[in-house]
Order: sequence, then C-alpha cells, then structure tokens
Amino acid sequence: MTKILILGGGGMVGQKLAARLVNEGLGGDAAPEITLFDVAFPPAGVGGPAQMTGDLKDPETAVRLAAMKPDVIFHLAAIVSGESETNFEKGWAINMMSMWHLLEALRQEHDKSGGSYVPRMVFTSSIAVFGAPYPDKIDDEFLSAPQTSYGAQKAICELMVTDFSRKGFIDGMSLRLPTICVRPGKANLAASSFFSGIIREPLNGVEALLPVPDTVRHWHASPRSAAGFLIHAASLDTDRLEGRRALSLPGVSCTVAEQIEALRRAAGQKAVDLIRHAPDEAIMKIVQGWPRDFDPQRAISLGFRAESSFDEIVDVYIKEDLPNATA
Amino acid sequence: MTKILILGGGGMVGQKLAARLVNEGLGGDAAPEITLFDVAFPPAGVGGPAQMTGDLKDPETAVRLAAMKPDVIFHLAAIVSGESETNFEKGWAINMMSMWHLLEALRQEHDKSGGSYVPRMVFTSSIAVFGAPYPDKIDDEFLSAPQTSYGAQKAICELMVTDFSRKGFIDGMSLRLPTICVRPGKANLAASSFFSGIIREPLNGVEALLPVPDTVRHWHASPRSAAGFLIHAASLDTDRLEGRRALSLPGVSCTVAEQIEALRRAAGQKAVDLIRHAPDEAIMKIVQGWPRDFDPQRAISLGFRAESSFDEIVDVYIKEDLPNATA
Repeated sequence: MTKILILGGGGMVGQKLAARLVNEGLGGDAAPEITLFDVAFPPAGVGGPAQMTGDLKDPETAVRLAAMKPDVIFHLAAIVSGESETNFEKGWAINMMSMWHLLEALRQEHDKSGGSYVPRMVFTSSIAVFGAPYPDKIDDEFLSAPQTSYGAQKAICELMVTDFSRKGFIDGMSLRLPTICVRPGKANLAASSFFSGIIREPLNGVEALLPVPDTVRHWHASPRSAAGFLIHAASLDTDRLEGRRALSLPGVSCTVAEQIEALRRAAGQKAVDLIRHAPDEAIMKIVQGWPRDFDPQRAISLGFRAESSFDEIVDVYIKEDLPNATA
Repeated sequence: MTKILILGGGGMVGQKLAARLVNEGLGGDAAPEITLFDVAFPPAGVGGPAQMTGDLKDPETAVRLAAMKPDVIFHLAAIVSGESETNFEKGWAINMMSMWHLLEALRQEHDKSGGSYVPRMVFTSSIAVFGAPYPDKIDDEFLSAPQTSYGAQKAICELMVTDFSRKGFIDGMSLRLPTICVRPGKANLAASSFFSGIIREPLNGVEALLPVPDTVRHWHASPRSAAGFLIHAASLDTDRLEGRRALSLPGVSCTVAEQIEALRRAAGQKAVDLIRHAPDEAIMKIVQGWPRDFDPQRAISLGFRAESSFDEIVDVYIKEDLPNATA
C-alpha cells in the first residue's frame, strides 16, 4: 500500500489534492494510506486521510515525519509571499530551513534502510523564483533571479531537492506552480490573492478590491490543474528530467482586463460592477516584478496539462467551488 | 580606517588578495585594517594582516566575526568541489550552512546598529553553479542547474547574499570565478586541480598527470585576475547590479590541447613531454559537466577584466609564482 504524506495538507491545494487521491488513488493503488500534516485543518475538510498537526520549524518534526517512511511526499507547506516579505525570520525558517531539516531526516532514513528507502518528493515551488527584467515568454533555460524572499527560499529549496535527488537520497522534483486561480474560500496573505478575489467575490455577489492596474499580465492555472500537476509528478519517470528537476508548468497568460472580460462572459456586467479599483503600492511593487508569460516546453513534453483559456479557469471555479456548485 | 575581513584568508586566492591589499590598500584607504580568518595559515604567508583561526561551521564563530563589524568581507572560504562531492555532510555544513549563520549574525549587527551597519560582502561563487547541457557560450541569463553538491551550495549562497542585500542587511555580491589557473603550490582536492598541474608541474621540471582528454574545453583566469575581480567588486556601486547580484566573470576559454600549446610556446617540448595522460573516470565525470565558454557582458560592462589568452595566464605564473620568479 502506497503511503502518502501531504505537508500543507490543510491548505486549499492540499485539500484539493487529498480529495482527488481519496477518489482516484495514486499510480494504480486505489486506496493509498494518506496522512495530511499542517498547523491546522478546516473544520469540514476532506474525510478519510489521517490528520497530523505540528510545527515544521522544529527539526524533531522532520525526524518524526521521515520516520513514517512515506513513499510519496507532497510538500506544499509554506509561508506565502506577502507574509515572507514582512516577516523575514519566519519566512526563512519555514520556507527554507524546514526543507533542509526534512531532507536531512529523509537522508537518515535512507541510510538506515541500507539505501532502499528513496521517497518520491513533489515540492511546490513558484514562478516567484524568477525576477524582472523578463523576455516576453520565460523559457526553460531562463535564470532564477528572485526579487522576494519567498522566491529566494523557493529557489533554494529547488536546488536542495535536486542535489539530494542526484545523490539518490530521495527522488524529488519541484513544480513552479502558476498563480492558482480561482482560489475558493477567503482571501489570504499572498500578494497574488486579488487575482482570485476579483473573480470569486463578484461570482458570490460581493465587492472585490483590485489593487493593481488592469494592464497587469500574469500566469494562472486552476486549483484542479494544480492537483493534476502534483498527481502527474508523483508517478513521472524522473529519469526523463535529465537532472533538471525544477519545472515551470503550463498555464494561461492573461491581463487583469482579460480576466474581467471572462468574468463578464460568465456572469454579466453586474458581476463586473462589483470590482472596485483600490490601488495598493505594496502589492503593485511585488506583483510588477512577477512573470507574465511562459514557454514551458519541457513540462508540456512531460505531459503536464493546464487550462487553455481564462474562461475555462472561471468555469472550473463555477463548477467545483462556487457555493451550491453541482460538482 | 577600513576594516577588512578575509574568510579563507589562508588559501591561495586569499593570500594573493591580502598581499594586494597590503600593497595597494582599498578604495583610497592606503592602510586598511586587515584580518585573515581560516582553519590554518601557510608558514611563510603574507605579513601584516592579523590572523585568526576557527571553525566556520560553528554558529558562534559567525557571531564573533560579525561582532568585529568589518566594513568589507571577502568570503572565499569553502570545501572544494571534489571533497564536497565525497563528503556530503561537510560540504553542506561549510559551504551552505556557515553562510547562513554568517548572514544571520551580520543581520543581528545591522539591527543592533539601528540599521547603520551594512557591510560590503564579496562572495566567491563558481561557474559550477551551471550544469550541462549548455549553449556554446553561457550568457548572463542562463539558468543555474548545478550537477554537483558544490555547485548547488554556491548557487544557494548567491540567492541568500542577494536577498539579504535586497533587504538592506548587507551590501553583497557573488562572483562566479572562472577556474583559477595557474595555481601556485601543491595540487588540491578540487576536481579542477589538474588544469593548473599540467602547466605548473612541467614548468618546475616535474611530471604532471592529465586525467581528461585534451579536447576538454574550460574557462580560466589567473590568480592575479581573481584578486583583481575581488578588489574591483569591493568598491563597485552595487546599484549598477539592478538586483542581480551574482555575476559570471570574464576569462579565457580554451581546450587542454590549447593550454599545452601555450606551455610549449613558453617552455618548449621538454616541458610538454612531462605531461602524462592518466585517465580518471571520476574527474572526467565531474569536469565534463562543467561550462566551457561564457559571454559575460554584464561583468565586462561593470569593469571586470581578465587575461585575453592562455599565454598571458602562463606568463602571470612564470612572473609571479614560479619559484625564483623575479616579481
């Protein structure tokens, strides 16, 4: 039986992933043993998986998690970009140092097993590993020059995951998720939160604040695609990565104005009228340093798939997550 | 008076740099206060600077060094590539974790000073941050995809130095030194050691082993250029880096066969006859993953200069380092 551990399993993507794994299994195992780890869990979360709470900053936590010897570790736990920028110590402790402790603990288990224990790790990195100035489309050989602490921490974790994998202690890969949109539920502290808010709030009849000009172009994929990326990565033949174990993923590039047009097509002018421009310098500064478009040929050739338009992304939210949705 | 700290000040480049600083001063200060830190020092090392020994792995060492409040820190201390590959724990502890401890200790001093203490840090990174496959020439936007632990550790330190600088705790930059050639003295554990050995040993009438085919192309600069890069970086206006604080430097791209021809021009066939082919699979495996040529436009536009041919590199060794050299 496949043992699966989801770090950050209480978060939005973690819950989507857990629901998919409960329904579909993983890699031919219809009923894997799933454990979710997080600081807290939503009250009406996915049923089935075991829940475990703890503090990833504590090296003992890493030892405890590694001792469970999961076959597959989905590592989604992170302090989001906005909070990493305002709380420097916390961001580095959670986003960088806890990865180090976890990798070291997994290496100890690898050694104790005589080398037979080599878990698959799928780590959610971010397009924040990139920094301006950019080409029109970021290709698979463009440098990581992050301009936020969050981006630096993610880029560092990518390097660690790759080197521990090269040495055979784990079999890992890092997925640079597009900004996940439309996020269900409440706004969070991520600087990117508004990209979802301007679609989600109007669809729920609530006013939404837009902190940036509508000319801002960005890179999106749905929560459904995010779960799909993670599941695809968990079973991928990593030899095909040829040592480059950090991947930019497919997504939809569009401007905020194009997002709003998709909202109009889905829900009409009265939804669009609920969006209020409320410029926020701090968010503008962070977001204007973010990527706008990608040419993720490696990920596409490896079989990763996302939506092909923002209309599809809106549709996923309406079908899966809008309160009283049918799916 | 400028306070200068050289970490790795007992090593070859550290000693070259110290000698230059003693002779020339730094940034208009003719007699800076120089402290060299290392695990050990050569018996007949550069006179003048204070010497300090210690273990960089110990976080208390970082606290002690930061408390000296150096204005300029040259960070050259590292476990070399070959040893980092065979001793995984030691490489990560020295090459990555000690940088973290140092940056954290400097951030504490910055905070204690009310933000006025912002030391310049010049960190010696390496072209080992890159990994094959490569374009013909690596430009300034090519990704870091290291294929050794040493390269991963250097790439991680670059990211840390950049983020601590972006936050204003230090004012740092990372220099990706070409392979330094011709290194005086004895062979070391670096996988690149033979690039110097095949020139140095024959010039001293001693047999040299060549562990790779002579078609291997690589990227070189002299120890004199290395010291020059570091001194240039110490006084550079870092605003000109526009947030990208890791730089590939100029150098000379040539094959081992071209190195040998330069040796022949400098010292004749009897020198060349002292080179013996002795293939070494382990070294070949590491070196074949290394860069061959660069197009380092940013560094050149920022005023960094190296030799323009391998003949010049041989000449630097003969003039400065050959026993009984005149300079």
